[in-house]
Amino acid sequence: MTASPLTGIDHVAVLVRDIDASLPYYTDVLGIPVVGDDVNAAANVRLLYLDAGNMVIQLVSPFGPGAIADALAKRGEGLHHICFQTQSIDIAIDTLAPGSEVAVSIGGRNRRTCFLPDRPNGLIMELTELEEVES
Amino acid sequence: MTASPLTGIDHVAVLVRDIDASLPYYTDVLGIPVVGDDVNAAANVRLLYLDAGNMVIQLVSPFGPGAIADALAKRGEGLHHICFQTQSIDIAIDTLAPGSEVAVSIGGRNRRTCFLPDRPNGLIMELTELEEVES
Repeated sequence: MTASPLTGIDHVAVLVRDIDASLPYYTDVLGIPVVGDDVNAAANVRLLYLDAGNMVIQLVSPFGPGAIADALAKRGEGLHHICFQTQSIDIAIDTLAPGSEVAVSIGGRNRRTCFLPDRPNGLIMELTELEEVES
Repeated sequence: MTASPLTGIDHVAVLVRDIDASLPYYTDVLGIPVVGDDVNAAANVRLLYLDAGNMVIQLVSPFGPGAIADALAKRGEGLHHICFQTQSIDIAIDTLAPGSEVAVSIGGRNRRTCFLPDRPNGLIMELTELEEVES
């Protein structure tokens, strides 16, 4: 077994049509507090962060065309991806997807992020660094 | 906002056709160690537990008819459900699904477990107590 560059799971993302309509169940029934509300303009998505204790539940909703709007049209609402924490995305890509062209961008919460090219068993996997990028 | 009976996320489940075929990606590429391998005979599923640091990734695979075989046939492989930790399933059901008939059973790792009747945005939610049931 390799030493893993992954240090834990940052969030699990739930794809929803309308965050404002979905949110009350999570906050008022489950009692999970909101800790962030962000927009990724490049991806045309709104990202809502709920603190589930040991990790975050992210509600993601499209407001324009892109991969998330496509996923919503194709699969409907529901679990979409998991996001691993790593100290260095560059090292993680070298270890987990050597030789692959992986697009690293500044995602929600002003962090460096990427999606892994592999989708074992249809599992979509994101990586994120915990440290915010200086803006 | 209500005080939540949920204390964190125990695991995220990935539905796979064949655990033995899927496992090497998780252990050898991602470097995530196996911490449990269980059978739920009542549900006709094998449950493989991987320690992702702050929580567990569960691979679930059917070996006979049931809800998991149905889900695999209908949706294919991929993310299936999230499981919240709670100190008391009975209190959690009273709080989160008052008046509902919820079947509590002994699931993987010899723990009391149930699935919530609500599926907001198609999200399947399990609850589990951390303490093992005495056998």
